[in-house]
Amino acid sequence: MAQKPKIPKGTRDFNAEEVAKRNYIMETIKKQFQVFGFQPIETPSFENSETLMGKYGEEGDRLIFKILNSGEYLKKLSDEDYAVKSESKFTSKISEKALRYDLTVPFARYVVQHQNDIAFPFKRYQIQPVWRADRPQKGRFREFFQCDADVVGSKSLWQEVEFVQLYDAVFSALQLNGVTIKINNRKILSGIAEVIGAQDKLIDFTVALDKLDKIGEDKVKEEMLNKGIPQSGIDKLQPLFSLKGDFIAQIESLKTILSTSKVGLKGIEELEFVNSTIEELGLKTAKLQLDVTLARGLNYYTGAIFEVSAPDGVKMGSIGGGGRYDDLTGIFGLKDVSGVGISFGLDRIYLVLEELELFPTTIKESTKVLFINFGDQEALACLKAIKGLRSNGIKAELYPDVAKMKKQMNYANRRNIPYVVLIGDEELKTDTFTLKHMESGEQSIVSLDHLIDQF
Amino acid sequence: MAQKPKIPKGTRDFNAEEVAKRNYIMETIKKQFQVFGFQPIETPSFENSETLMGKYGEEGDRLIFKILNSGEYLKKLSDEDYAVKSESKFTSKISEKALRYDLTVPFARYVVQHQNDIAFPFKRYQIQPVWRADRPQKGRFREFFQCDADVVGSKSLWQEVEFVQLYDAVFSALQLNGVTIKINNRKILSGIAEVIGAQDKLIDFTVALDKLDKIGEDKVKEEMLNKGIPQSGIDKLQPLFSLKGDFIAQIESLKTILSTSKVGLKGIEELEFVNSTIEELGLKTAKLQLDVTLARGLNYYTGAIFEVSAPDGVKMGSIGGGGRYDDLTGIFGLKDVSGVGISFGLDRIYLVLEELELFPTTIKESTKVLFINFGDQEALACLKAIKGLRSNGIKAELYPDVAKMKKQMNYANRRNIPYVVLIGDEELKTDTFTLKHMESGEQSIVSLDHLIDQF
Repeated sequence: MAQKPKIPKGTRDFNAEEVAKRNYIMETIKKQFQVFGFQPIETPSFENSETLMGKYGEEGDRLIFKILNSGEYLKKLSDEDYAVKSESKFTSKISEKALRYDLTVPFARYVVQHQNDIAFPFKRYQIQPVWRADRPQKGRFREFFQCDADVVGSKSLWQEVEFVQLYDAVFSALQLNGVTIKINNRKILSGIAEVIGAQDKLIDFTVALDKLDKIGEDKVKEEMLNKGIPQSGIDKLQPLFSLKGDFIAQIESLKTILSTSKVGLKGIEELEFVNSTIEELGLKTAKLQLDVTLARGLNYYTGAIFEVSAPDGVKMGSIGGGGRYDDLTGIFGLKDVSGVGISFGLDRIYLVLEELELFPTTIKESTKVLFINFGDQEALACLKAIKGLRSNGIKAELYPDVAKMKKQMNYANRRNIPYVVLIGDEELKTDTFTLKHMESGEQSIVSLDHLIDQF
Repeated sequence: MAQKPKIPKGTRDFNAEEVAKRNYIMETIKKQFQVFGFQPIETPSFENSETLMGKYGEEGDRLIFKILNSGEYLKKLSDEDYAVKSESKFTSKISEKALRYDLTVPFARYVVQHQNDIAFPFKRYQIQPVWRADRPQKGRFREFFQCDADVVGSKSLWQEVEFVQLYDAVFSALQLNGVTIKINNRKILSGIAEVIGAQDKLIDFTVALDKLDKIGEDKVKEEMLNKGIPQSGIDKLQPLFSLKGDFIAQIESLKTILSTSKVGLKGIEELEFVNSTIEELGLKTAKLQLDVTLARGLNYYTGAIFEVSAPDGVKMGSIGGGGRYDDLTGIFGLKDVSGVGISFGLDRIYLVLEELELFPTTIKESTKVLFINFGDQEALACLKAIKGLRSNGIKAELYPDVAKMKKQMNYANRRNIPYVVLIGDEELKTDTFTLKHMESGEQSIVSLDHLIDQF
């Protein structure tokens, strides 16, 4: 016998229930994206290699899946190329396309390529899979969906306000109440680096600060020292490590620390605008929280930085994140296009909804009613009734074979079908249906109109 | 300046309108799939190479996109491997994964892998992209979506009946009235081959017969002769080339031609069952037509063969097709699983709906109302109103910048936004809104409740 086939590691099959649950999340997100005025775009699964390579750092380049050229691709490869035995050199000769690694670079490419057809500011959303040749582990996959919304072409802070509202709207619609939307601003981080005299070490500084939650104050300080940030600077930071209180109280402390930094004060001004506007507008179920340790390890952001964490009590990394970047399309030659965007972590949101049992109970129900098959004459009568049900949008099906009653009932059970209909001699004569509720076992004799009304 | 980036040939970007139109088709298909009791599954974009290779013939193997192994993949390649200069040998050393070529083989793999978790008969649908390294040309792409529905695990002919109904339901829901669902049966073709004494040339015979519409009777006969089918056999076929009349009249002619062929008569019986049941049940807008030249070039089908053509007057190849295959999963070691399925040609259906102007006119409308931005105080009032609209599911947005009125109006026009709202000093004082209809230019002063009611 042939070996049972398998799928590549780090990839997944999704059964009906999983697809339904994933779609429920994606459709909820999509609906709010649209209500907020975002427009969908889609880009190809693979891009020319030069579009992707060099955009995610050295590590990123290695994690990009490359597609082998088709046809007689070895003709482009010389003996000298082979002799070097370097994968990167070799790859560039036999591969010209690669699977997308995220949705941001393809989006930047899209904006530049279609700039004359786009009405700016351009509010786009995109929900598509991405691929990474990462080592697979629990919760990390080689193929996964990203759900992004971005606006490019405007520096207005009203957009930051709207993204906070958007997060609130999506998580509230998912009944996932009480998420924390953490906000920071890259200008605050720059200001801090300036004040402590470590402007040139901003990357090291933010990377270390980002770990405060995980490794604690002492280890963070140690790492900063190791990276060459002076002790005197770290001392000045002390108020940072123990920043307490609500948004406004934290802002007041920051004003003291950053009083001499122009960029820092600008960051404070931006945060204050977003916070006071959100206070004014109100949120449905989320809370907005200032988190000066938030850096998201990225040098990419230039203004607001967002991250969303699950409600208290749920152990889970961030379920969303984003921020403002001032030069999205510069890599493709279009300067000065500022953007701001957020994304939703589909797989993690799925796990959280599962844990808190927040998926609608109807999601497991595929077909509403199964018609039992007793023979050709009965089956024809069934299909006539089924036609009426389906025309009314009711999910109905006929068991295709004249199998034993028990087998057909079993099928209904395994498929979570709540009702079955039986048509035998008596029903054929009187043009009626015996309707049985699977869980209670209750039976009733009904007409077709009753049947349609029932569902 | 950097070069304007491009996408790989044979691939496409989709803008908001295109995504909306594609989704409209896919959602319509999906809804009918569900109403007919089909359940969604999804499989990974790439499979292990051994799952795909050898399943689509030699040509197919060449058209499969292979993914380069990641990491130090050259280590697996010996100098001897290199010396052979054979792409197929080389590829097997440096590539272990490949992008799926269709949805059928991954589906077969899925059924075998998850056979213990599946309730048979298994009615599944799958709507996902596939990739082919074909030479791109008008209407042929390297990445495109397939929309498939199949039932496996039952030989019941009621399923053929339901697939005819399903085609009718989908195209009727798309307002694409008058499509022709052509049906044939592989057993008819086998019977014909038997009668004319060319059982061993069934492939050549069906391939030639399939071209009747394109190259005409004489050329088809010539090709058959060239393939070694005897003239005496071709003469016996004459009634086939001029088969006229409705379904039942054609069946009667076939009964004469195939009177000595057991398999042929079986095929006739199956066709008669499907046709008479459909007559009894009725179709909404499609018509069912017997087409004995229908072979779909595939040796794959063992029973019914389907193909759908666009309404008369629309020049377009088939917009759907399918049939019964008796051994889907045998390639993966699970014997005797009969299946039947159909698929929808998304890209062609798109072109037909475009040509006949059948897309709903509301599809171009993204946002319903744009709020003009006159300054921070006004913008805040706008966002308060927008929040109310969005909570009611109305798509509304604020222009993010305080730009010139003309620029903001222009943006509304380019985005096909039908209404704008203006809030100035007067409106702020009276808590009202000036609502302007873009097309007519009509203005009215309304309250927030009015605004919500209006949309």
